[in-house]
Amino acid sequence: MVRDALLVDLYELTMMEAYHHQGISGTATFDLFVRALPDERNFLLTAGLGPLLEALEGLRFTSDDLSYLETTGIFGKGFLDVLETFRFSGDVDAMAEGSIAFAGEPFLRVTAPVIEAQFLETLVMNQVHLATTLASKAARVVLAADGRGLADFGLRRTHGAEAGTSGARAHWIAGFDSTSNVLAGKLYGIPISGTMAHSFVQLHEEEEDAFRSFARVFPDTVLLVDTYDTLRGVDLVIDLAAELGSDFRVRGVRLDSGDLASLAAATREKLDGAGLERVQIFASGNLDEWRVRELVRGGAPIDAFGVGTRLGTSQDAPNLDIVYKLAQYDERPLLKLSTDKATLPGIKQVWRRRDGEGRLVGDTIGLAAEDLSGEPQLRPAMRSGRRVPSAVEDLQAVRSRARSELAGLPESVRALEPADPPYEVAISDSLSSLRDRLVEELR
Amino acid sequence: MVRDALLVDLYELTMMEAYHHQGISGTATFDLFVRALPDERNFLLTAGLGPLLEALEGLRFTSDDLSYLETTGIFGKGFLDVLETFRFSGDVDAMAEGSIAFAGEPFLRVTAPVIEAQFLETLVMNQVHLATTLASKAARVVLAADGRGLADFGLRRTHGAEAGTSGARAHWIAGFDSTSNVLAGKLYGIPISGTMAHSFVQLHEEEEDAFRSFARVFPDTVLLVDTYDTLRGVDLVIDLAAELGSDFRVRGVRLDSGDLASLAAATREKLDGAGLERVQIFASGNLDEWRVRELVRGGAPIDAFGVGTRLGTSQDAPNLDIVYKLAQYDERPLLKLSTDKATLPGIKQVWRRRDGEGRLVGDTIGLAAEDLSGEPQLRPAMRSGRRVPSAVEDLQAVRSRARSELAGLPESVRALEPADPPYEVAISDSLSSLRDRLVEELR
Repeated sequence: MVRDALLVDLYELTMMEAYHHQGISGTATFDLFVRALPDERNFLLTAGLGPLLEALEGLRFTSDDLSYLETTGIFGKGFLDVLETFRFSGDVDAMAEGSIAFAGEPFLRVTAPVIEAQFLETLVMNQVHLATTLASKAARVVLAADGRGLADFGLRRTHGAEAGTSGARAHWIAGFDSTSNVLAGKLYGIPISGTMAHSFVQLHEEEEDAFRSFARVFPDTVLLVDTYDTLRGVDLVIDLAAELGSDFRVRGVRLDSGDLASLAAATREKLDGAGLERVQIFASGNLDEWRVRELVRGGAPIDAFGVGTRLGTSQDAPNLDIVYKLAQYDERPLLKLSTDKATLPGIKQVWRRRDGEGRLVGDTIGLAAEDLSGEPQLRPAMRSGRRVPSAVEDLQAVRSRARSELAGLPESVRALEPADPPYEVAISDSLSSLRDRLVEELR
Repeated sequence: MVRDALLVDLYELTMMEAYHHQGISGTATFDLFVRALPDERNFLLTAGLGPLLEALEGLRFTSDDLSYLETTGIFGKGFLDVLETFRFSGDVDAMAEGSIAFAGEPFLRVTAPVIEAQFLETLVMNQVHLATTLASKAARVVLAADGRGLADFGLRRTHGAEAGTSGARAHWIAGFDSTSNVLAGKLYGIPISGTMAHSFVQLHEEEEDAFRSFARVFPDTVLLVDTYDTLRGVDLVIDLAAELGSDFRVRGVRLDSGDLASLAAATREKLDGAGLERVQIFASGNLDEWRVRELVRGGAPIDAFGVGTRLGTSQDAPNLDIVYKLAQYDERPLLKLSTDKATLPGIKQVWRRRDGEGRLVGDTIGLAAEDLSGEPQLRPAMRSGRRVPSAVEDLQAVRSRARSELAGLPESVRALEPADPPYEVAISDSLSSLRDRLVEELR
């Protein structure tokens, strides 16, 4: 579905037909950026670039697509012929996947004949928005977990199969250790995890039978102990350890309800008292970065967290104010003035300055032709419709980048609370002069 | 991706392997329901059943899937052989798509050999959750719009392509008139809508040139007037009408920013003053059911609304507390007691009572074997792995059902504010006795 050329807002196609009729075919540049961050986010962790570029290379209208468009009666034959041979032949510049971005910063830029660049709007926004929304949420959970293990359990309540699978990829980029989503394991090579549900326990006459049976098939498993009474469940695991002796290899127990802090403490005490120090404690159930931080800071003896729905839907901020805006046409820098929706004109670059330890100290958005201090963040990703070799990255490389980028965030930005002041993103003098001049001309 | 058998949480597969090893193969019944509604919802509009049933009929593990599972080292050869010939052979009973459901009511029930019924958990939850979340949100917007036109503009910021496409379907079921998503138009026959973006205006040297050009290609279009200054944009449309005379067939103008109420009023006045009473006003920009209601109640002369991100992500309640819970195994009714997560045992039915005008007055959840007053809501949807004919519905029929179901809601439930008291859902005496007896036995 992601590669389907009809995954597009109708108005992209009507505008394309109008350009076609008018013979408007100059080069346009569009910027992808987030106007303002949600109150619950101090930064974005960008994701989705790799799969997007692959999709752009393969973008084609099928004969089925064209037949459908014809039946709508909206389009002329001449324009449908244009679509039949449509290929994306333009350039993409972008921050590498797994980079940090802030409000207002273009992190992806498309330069192409206007008909192509316009066409990409819906697909680029839809795909990068999903991955970046979920990676940015996951990054907060990773920071809160402070080194504890993290498993993505979101699939059952994500917004569909694609959200659960792109999400697993995004969470893994952000630093999660595994996912319950088997398809994501197959597609992206992400480690998969998961053992048993309450239904497995319920279905057995006795809870201890369920544990014994499961451990027979999967000796180093994690047993879910809260189906009826959590601490009684832990006792049954201890009984099983006594029964099996050296054959007992159960790796952990999982708590999925109740007061996780006190239950984890009591569980640890019981396990340790039985000489089962090596049996780990996993916790799940309505977790998010705030609950994880509370448990970690409170010293709860939890080795790993399973985080699901609140992560997988980015529940507190399910969308970003992401936009794809025309910045230049035919070498003419452009902006729009709509109330609260004004944009920055021209072909831009983002420079990032770091201190001696690599920690971020400030960004500047300027015109690409400028030479400002710091490291330019937008780099070539596609040229003439083909990915440049450096943009075809191993997922592990993206994950490593994200780890070091997150480590380089200032403390106030890493915090879960709103950074005050927010991270500094300046606009260069040349860019603001250009903007002011164009605003003047339009008024 | 939706039909991919690996779209599953790993633990379903490990439990299945354990059942296989233990020779546990009895019939299990699982209920799908929402434990508690979000504070922002008084009811659910169920959606997603049709595509789900189709996916269940086609569920197969490919040789690629099996090879991947083998590489994980988790599964034995014997179990992989079972998966190779896996087919869903069970029964599904469900409320018809486009029905109203309330918290605690099973609206879909799977009865099948336990290995199959367990396998379905992730897919059933993931797909029905997405569609029902979005249909339930859209239903609120439809009620708020009180007959005004509604277009779904969500695609660019939904959680991926699938969410945007399933979403368009769900919104249409709920009563939206069209979608901007061309793929949804092709797949589901939903009317598509959309005309121009700000970029089209920006790209022309003069705003009036953009309007003139677009109206030449699409004479009965809607022109976007707020790129620079909304009321100046309206003046330019009026100028164009004067210029084109009887060739002027522009259907409407769209406002996408600023104070929509006052801009719509001023726009209407300008248009009417120029004799353009038939030119409609469309509004968009950060709309949701609350903003739509405010504009409608305030008498803003807006003919139709384009609703996007807040709808497409169900922003105020991006997930439901949906669960898929074991209710019976091998003719033995079951429940679980986990804190705040207790379930109702046995094979159940939901009876709905209406007054003389068809308006809902109360529901009762009871045991399916009971004969209670009201109309049973759960009906056969699949038998032995095949859809029953009555469950293969035209989307228009689903949409019609939703319309009449929404019309039958009590006023307090139709309201955007939380219904106080909430709609009455009782539990039958037999069901509560059974539950109490099982709780007693477990304690």
